[in-house]
Amino acid sequence: MIQTPYLLFLGDAPDGLAAKVAQGIKDWRPEASVGQFRMENCKADLGLQDMTLAEAKAAGAKTLVIGVANRGGVISAAWKAVLVEALEMGFDLASGLHNLLRDENDLVAASQTHGQTLHDVRVPNASYPIANGVKRSGKRCLAVGTDCSVGKMYTGIAMEREMLDRGMKATFRATGQTGILITGSGVPLDAVIADFMAGAVEYLTPDNDPDHWDLIEGQGSLYHVSYSGVTLALVHGGQPDALVLCTEPTRKHMRGLPGYQQPTLEQLRDTALPLAQIANPACKVVAISANTQHLNEADALAYLAEVEARMGLPAVDPYRQGAARLVDALEGI
Amino acid sequence: MIQTPYLLFLGDAPDGLAAKVAQGIKDWRPEASVGQFRMENCKADLGLQDMTLAEAKAAGAKTLVIGVANRGGVISAAWKAVLVEALEMGFDLASGLHNLLRDENDLVAASQTHGQTLHDVRVPNASYPIANGVKRSGKRCLAVGTDCSVGKMYTGIAMEREMLDRGMKATFRATGQTGILITGSGVPLDAVIADFMAGAVEYLTPDNDPDHWDLIEGQGSLYHVSYSGVTLALVHGGQPDALVLCTEPTRKHMRGLPGYQQPTLEQLRDTALPLAQIANPACKVVAISANTQHLNEADALAYLAEVEARMGLPAVDPYRQGAARLVDALEGI
Repeated sequence: MIQTPYLLFLGDAPDGLAAKVAQGIKDWRPEASVGQFRMENCKADLGLQDMTLAEAKAAGAKTLVIGVANRGGVISAAWKAVLVEALEMGFDLASGLHNLLRDENDLVAASQTHGQTLHDVRVPNASYPIANGVKRSGKRCLAVGTDCSVGKMYTGIAMEREMLDRGMKATFRATGQTGILITGSGVPLDAVIADFMAGAVEYLTPDNDPDHWDLIEGQGSLYHVSYSGVTLALVHGGQPDALVLCTEPTRKHMRGLPGYQQPTLEQLRDTALPLAQIANPACKVVAISANTQHLNEADALAYLAEVEARMGLPAVDPYRQGAARLVDALEGI
Repeated sequence: MIQTPYLLFLGDAPDGLAAKVAQGIKDWRPEASVGQFRMENCKADLGLQDMTLAEAKAAGAKTLVIGVANRGGVISAAWKAVLVEALEMGFDLASGLHNLLRDENDLVAASQTHGQTLHDVRVPNASYPIANGVKRSGKRCLAVGTDCSVGKMYTGIAMEREMLDRGMKATFRATGQTGILITGSGVPLDAVIADFMAGAVEYLTPDNDPDHWDLIEGQGSLYHVSYSGVTLALVHGGQPDALVLCTEPTRKHMRGLPGYQQPTLEQLRDTALPLAQIANPACKVVAISANTQHLNEADALAYLAEVEARMGLPAVDPYRQGAARLVDALEGI
């Protein structure tokens, strides 16, 4: 577990998009985000209080979270100065960067000298078992997408919040870097050794109370040829009782694969459900979650109504409409 | 590439089954197997000439291949003495053991002193790309199974041999430890990082002559919840033009998963083909390869005839009948 609360490091972000990890943390864990740290020339702004390291320390911050992408894949000298000073002042560091903190000698040395922890959430920190496929107690919901980056994480977190607000037992289970930084724990599934992928998902979603729901963060897509194996490990390791189909209706082709068309929601349903039923014959597709950010309100609502009628399932954009109807769809499962 | 020819190390194998890796190498690469090295109490015998290290060296052997499972997951002192002596005499070592040669300090020291190479085929020796899904030239055939360990490797190698005998262009592409030791190269797919699985398969089966066939070694099964993600990475990274369905008709449940039934050949076909057509819309299921070793000859032939009639596809046990009809089934693809 990564210790909270966080000071969110935005560095010298050239724009808001570069700080989208920090934005996700601030949106979903405002109570854990005491402030933001911005360097000169930083063009991102989360609307949090700007703090020096000393101010954040006084406000109780325990971990400096790198919530921004680095330029050119290098941790710059300017960043380094801040990161080393943070370690000296008693912060842990957490990062989802491809460059690992643990590969930077000066950060390792400072963390050892000052007894602080470096969290590289991009790499696994546990040995996972081979999946055994044994049925587990408790309920599980998995978001599966027509493509990568269509709102699977958002859907899972929004459903968890709605369920907790209703007093239900629910846990969002993070399987990607941003999700792990938001929740403070999880499995970075795309970095797990192939043989242990499904076992890592079993490890992440263990036996639980019969009325407890795991909301498992989906990854990739069964239709995305670069990452489909990771997705199938989630479908089989997760043993979902319920699938939510996620889509982004304006996407022209599979992300990063110009030669590959998006599947229809019917194709996704007819591919994902039989595969899920191998691990859990009772699995059902319960709802559709669409990311309609590129449509205007009228077009978005028309699209959702059309999909709902066509598929015979609730179709919701949880960002526009909240996740209530997605959670309602789990009733009786 | 692992240098040939090999001296096959059988150690103190308690029975023939413990030496099945060596048996596979001897069966498929007899020209590369100059002899066997057996310690006292060795109960396995490949029928090759027993040789000392010096005799094998004189016969031209370049690599000592550990073709036997070790007991208790430990490389024993008795083995070590032989392995160190082999390095001193100028042999490379190759192993598919879970314990890596490179983790044994005495073997590392001896290999460095004597300029020899340690090949741990269980771990990748290259950085693989993320799959790009771009269509490649040449033809590819993938074996997909109802389960693990149903004869996918055997089917691929037998087809390669038949094709080479006919003067066709063909390459067996190994994706597992035994296959890599047999061919001398390949990708240990179950040890690759999740994000790079499909890319590793693309790397293994690059652009080729239009009339060249890659025979890709299958792994796991789309129906085996522990390993299905690896299988789907092969289906999508391999872009197969042809699928051969592999099965073992007497298997009672999925290997290692008592709660999971075997799929029928119809289920396997209807699951694997649409998934394969995502990456290659022209893909076809061309034949069935059954491992009938647990049936007598009459029952085996009756089974194959029944499957052939039912599925409308050639159904063959390549061990009993050769792979000719499997290769014939690729005609016109």
